[in-house]
Amino acid sequence: VAATLPTGRLEAFSDGVFAIAITLLVLEISVPEGSGDDLLEAILDQWPSYLAYVVSFATIGATWLAHNTMTELLHRADSVLLRLNLLLLMLVSFVPFPTSLVAEHIHERNAERVATTILGLNLLAIAILVSVMWRYALRGEHARLDPDDEEVQVLTRRLTPGLAGYVAFIALGLVAPIAAVIGYLLIALALLFPIGLGGSGSSTET
Amino acid sequence: VAATLPTGRLEAFSDGVFAIAITLLVLEISVPEGSGDDLLEAILDQWPSYLAYVVSFATIGATWLAHNTMTELLHRADSVLLRLNLLLLMLVSFVPFPTSLVAEHIHERNAERVATTILGLNLLAIAILVSVMWRYALRGEHARLDPDDEEVQVLTRRLTPGLAGYVAFIALGLVAPIAAVIGYLLIALALLFPIGLGGSGSSTET
Amino acid sequence: VAATLPTGRLEAFSDGVFAIAITLLVLEISVPEGSGDDLLEAILDQWPSYLAYVVSFATIGATWLAHNTMTELLHRADSVLLRLNLLLLMLVSFVPFPTSLVAEHIHERNAERVATTILGLNLLAIAILVSVMWRYALRGEHARLDPDDEEVQVLTRRLTPGLAGYVAFIALGLVAPIAAVIGYLLIALALLFPIGLGGSGSSTET
Amino acid sequence: VAATLPTGRLEAFSDGVFAIAITLLVLEISVPEGSGDDLLEAILDQWPSYLAYVVSFATIGATWLAHNTMTELLHRADSVLLRLNLLLLMLVSFVPFPTSLVAEHIHERNAERVATTILGLNLLAIAILVSVMWRYALRGEHARLDPDDEEVQVLTRRLTPGLAGYVAFIALGLVAPIAAVIGYLLIALALLFPIGLGGSGSSTET
Repeated sequence: VAATLPTGRLEAFSDGVFAIAITLLVLEISVPEGSGDDLLEAILDQWPSYLAYVVSFATIGATWLAHNTMTELLHRADSVLLRLNLLLLMLVSFVPFPTSLVAEHIHERNAERVATTILGLNLLAIAILVSVMWRYALRGEHARLDPDDEEVQVLTRRLTPGLAGYVAFIALGLVAPIAAVIGYLLIALALLFPIGLGGSGSSTET
Repeated sequence: VAATLPTGRLEAFSDGVFAIAITLLVLEISVPEGSGDDLLEAILDQWPSYLAYVVSFATIGATWLAHNTMTELLHRADSVLLRLNLLLLMLVSFVPFPTSLVAEHIHERNAERVATTILGLNLLAIAILVSVMWRYALRGEHARLDPDDEEVQVLTRRLTPGLAGYVAFIALGLVAPIAAVIGYLLIALALLFPIGLGGSGSSTET
Repeated sequence: VAATLPTGRLEAFSDGVFAIAITLLVLEISVPEGSGDDLLEAILDQWPSYLAYVVSFATIGATWLAHNTMTELLHRADSVLLRLNLLLLMLVSFVPFPTSLVAEHIHERNAERVATTILGLNLLAIAILVSVMWRYALRGEHARLDPDDEEVQVLTRRLTPGLAGYVAFIALGLVAPIAAVIGYLLIALALLFPIGLGGSGSSTET
Repeated sequence: VAATLPTGRLEAFSDGVFAIAITLLVLEISVPEGSGDDLLEAILDQWPSYLAYVVSFATIGATWLAHNTMTELLHRADSVLLRLNLLLLMLVSFVPFPTSLVAEHIHERNAERVATTILGLNLLAIAILVSVMWRYALRGEHARLDPDDEEVQVLTRRLTPGLAGYVAFIALGLVAPIAAVIGYLLIALALLFPIGLGGSGSSTET
């Protein structure tokens, strides 16, 4: 079959980008300097940095997990999927930028609205692309789909509400930015820990 | 056969360097500080950073895709190819430097000409090296070439005009720097999305 | 079996995060500037940076080795292990932050206590998670355990004293911060170089 | 055989660290700011940065190549080799620090001597460790050595003079620092491009 490649290097390259983007997030947390006696206070004061860190880490982690499940279905990647994947990686590797926007501006009145909206749009764009790639991969000729696989079913079931969730929390962010950031975290956690699944218990039932 | 190595680690190491170079690009986008009310304006004002980011991301992505297609043709890498590959990786990992040159100096009269020319020369050097490695790999004894493979034919057909394109846009950049940067983007996109190919449709015809 | 994935990408992604976290540590060592004649003195003066670097490098290295031994036991990873692994990676990729806290604040009276305690808690959390994952993997249905494997036995025997060691050194750190940091290093070295094993000699006996 | 692991993850983790260390080097090249009209001059003025970049890139690249040849000889890695490898990776990931020391201090009288000596000691330590690991791997029970392999013979022949070369150039650096840095580059190039080998021509002879 022409114009397709085995998924080996697509996986290795993607794992690299995911791993780097998720690890670079820590560089956005600045070390409080010259704070002498009250270093602990200075560290606790920058809680928005840790919140933004956890949100972005959980989202990239959940995206990696979905990506992992997806490539597991495929023998080879065709031209379209290779390009969609590059676009997804561009969006994922962009995440450290809005993450630090949120970390630095969350106490400022108007700025925090701008920052959380940009982070939300970035995460929404990632969710849309995962959704598109997922549907494309499920239909593709190179799929080796096991429709009874729980992880596959759970992911499919969760992707659409996830999109709606981002839209809702981006809108909420215009009035309550911090609530929106917590909302983004909840979406990532919902993707990571699907209720009623998730344990080795359920995986042994089948 | 002496003095050759299987391509496994060449691919893993190259994937690592490509992934890191492409992900480090986001660190060049600085977070506007102390901008209070007009954060959105401050963010929009640094559009050259985003343009430079997209140009470099697309070029490294296209180079990775060409590299991927190339190693797919090879069983083993000989001494020459291993050294050419190290040189290519040096050029690829250098890209974040001229990218941030462009991002920071695009509004300055003479400086923007210097910055875009250096970026162009870096991208041209990458294109030349990909072209040399490609020709070397196609001829090599370790090739397992399928000359009917569309992706191979498309890549071969596109590489030479790509070189001419860089030379033309570097020259253009001496009078119109921003137009040159957009030109670099067009070349990367032309490599990524060859007209008349690119879909799963065409890949199923064969 | 549903809801499990082969360990290939889990290993690749984890290797990526471990490799990046361990390599980013060097960025925390700042280059003394404008120090002219006494550059050597300026370099030696920042010995806490090198100590923190070695401690964090040794700990992440030991964790990678334990992780390596663990995935070697597994055919596939189930949902629980995939999530535990993401949590472990989050803790590992966080290490550069307390590392630079220690590097920058070790000469300041109260600040150094805060910094070493935070580093200790981070390393303790990593040790707890490795311990939990290790027990989970040993019991799991996907394990292909060889209970006579020395490396397995040694690791199991060492993990619990390691936890106790961290608790002890964190407590010690409240009165003697630098001693605590050296204690963290000793724990990492004890995991890396188990007494009475460790050589090719012993591995040839079996 | 107890206490050994297959080399798969050792290679992946090492490739990751090599790739990151080699790519981080570019971050040490600072972007000249506020230089307006004479940006080109400002860029050319920081030639020590580019020299240091090329030296460190070539050395890490040559070390990766030697490492690649070495793991190619091994089926499994025992405890000693895993630990030696971690030590090698610590030295490799440290390289960006002395590289930026050289880049920033090369014009300063006494400081440049300190900086080039530290870089030389780092590169010497890497060369010693590669040499030790190489000898260990060649003798090991897990080796699948082909003593007629040219790449193996060349590497063995080159490693010892390489060590002597570093010692000589470190000594030279005390009187002529820049000459020493160029010397380090020559050693790396000698490892990368062994005279009388290096081509696909010679690899087809056997």
